[in-house]
Amino acid sequence: MIAFIEQLILEAGELIQALIQEELHIKSKDTHDWVTNIDYQVEAFLVNGIVKAYPDANFLTEEDTIQTQDLNNLFIIDPIDGTTNLIHQKQHFAISLAYYNNNEPLFGFVYDVMAQRLFKGIKGEGAYLNNTPYQMNPNRDALRIEQGLIFGDLSKEGLFKKPLPEIKNKIATHRFLGSAAIEVCEVAFEMAHAYVFPKITLWDVAAAFIILKEAGGSWYFGDTIEGYPLDKNHYYVIAATNKNVLENILSWK
Amino acid sequence: MIAFIEQLILEAGELIQALIQEELHIKSKDTHDWVTNIDYQVEAFLVNGIVKAYPDANFLTEEDTIQTQDLNNLFIIDPIDGTTNLIHQKQHFAISLAYYNNNEPLFGFVYDVMAQRLFKGIKGEGAYLNNTPYQMNPNRDALRIEQGLIFGDLSKEGLFKKPLPEIKNKIATHRFLGSAAIEVCEVAFEMAHAYVFPKITLWDVAAAFIILKEAGGSWYFGDTIEGYPLDKNHYYVIAATNKNVLENILSWK
Repeated sequence: MIAFIEQLILEAGELIQALIQEELHIKSKDTHDWVTNIDYQVEAFLVNGIVKAYPDANFLTEEDTIQTQDLNNLFIIDPIDGTTNLIHQKQHFAISLAYYNNNEPLFGFVYDVMAQRLFKGIKGEGAYLNNTPYQMNPNRDALRIEQGLIFGDLSKEGLFKKPLPEIKNKIATHRFLGSAAIEVCEVAFEMAHAYVFPKITLWDVAAAFIILKEAGGSWYFGDTIEGYPLDKNHYYVIAATNKNVLENILSWK
Repeated sequence: MIAFIEQLILEAGELIQALIQEELHIKSKDTHDWVTNIDYQVEAFLVNGIVKAYPDANFLTEEDTIQTQDLNNLFIIDPIDGTTNLIHQKQHFAISLAYYNNNEPLFGFVYDVMAQRLFKGIKGEGAYLNNTPYQMNPNRDALRIEQGLIFGDLSKEGLFKKPLPEIKNKIATHRFLGSAAIEVCEVAFEMAHAYVFPKITLWDVAAAFIILKEAGGSWYFGDTIEGYPLDKNHYYVIAATNKNVLENILSWK
């Protein structure tokens, strides 16, 4: 199943590379929240491909192609994480797909389509970038938060109780890319110490959490350490290279 | 000369791709401002290559390889713009090289090394990404700032007089990549409406300004519209897709 899904995601990437050359159809879902024809077409492509091969599959997806109450044999899909980046930048967006069974995350893919970076995590087997395995070094110097680079919009309302200048003094610097899936994967590959955002839905990060865990990192989501509530609610998220970094940032919340 | 410099920059990119596999030597220049062996080695590679071919060349460079008072026949070089990204992320940094003569910018290159995106601007001849020419459509809808994506750390001290929530209401969203050269080039290619930062030195943006101008954009720097003061001071910068966007952001300053 993992090999089948990997192939399906690469094909969805090719579909996106073709669709992005044409004019986009953009709809507003909410203030500053958009959806395009590509989001819908890619979700349909993935869901149809999976249903053909696995007719009993259940789905939790951003664009709600299929409604389901059954949380077993579950594919959690965000066809385009970072739709705003797709619209403006035509890069820095990802397909996110996770597979959970018996309430347990089993594997996940995040595909940064335009950069052709395929992140993969398989429970108990490790984290991979384009099939090269990766494991964090838990002792490396740069894991100290004082020298840390953090992903997120630090000025976002609801992010920190402490004043922003105080937070900024605790870290070296920050960046904000605008795709939770990619940002959590980059934390897994130690390109940042942490990612933090006040309102994230499981489909944005379900796959990236598996990759992060397999690489040696940890997270806070659904009001708990390493939680993954199987619903459509928004939660505060912290993804971190290790528990020290995670606890540090939790104390600023 | 342009073809020679283009080749030299691509070779410098290969040098970086090799050096980045080895352990970095990192020095602190200032609080949260670092320099690595790669910055020094790449600047030396570029300066030596240019001096051999053009012995009368003058230089204004970030790492001060050669001191000069003569501002003619001038190469303005930042060997690595985005050193913090190089250290943490091993991507999202660029070589920036501009050539000015008689106080006039003539051509510029920004090379996003890991993504192998070579931005080029030649006065009067246009802007290019990997040799494909680009010209902005000055009438496109998305140029309205209300739907705009802006690059920069919006919470940076000294950026805006108006309160941040008010600024955030004026735009759709923002991103912060951490390489001025790349961010200004991406504005030139309409991947964002503007880039804004309170403290930037000419070598960070000298090449990107030429690319922006040739693509149809404009900027504010050195306290003036389309200024390029030939010194090592820090200035407030706004790079924008057009004059409307530029004037809007100037009014928030």
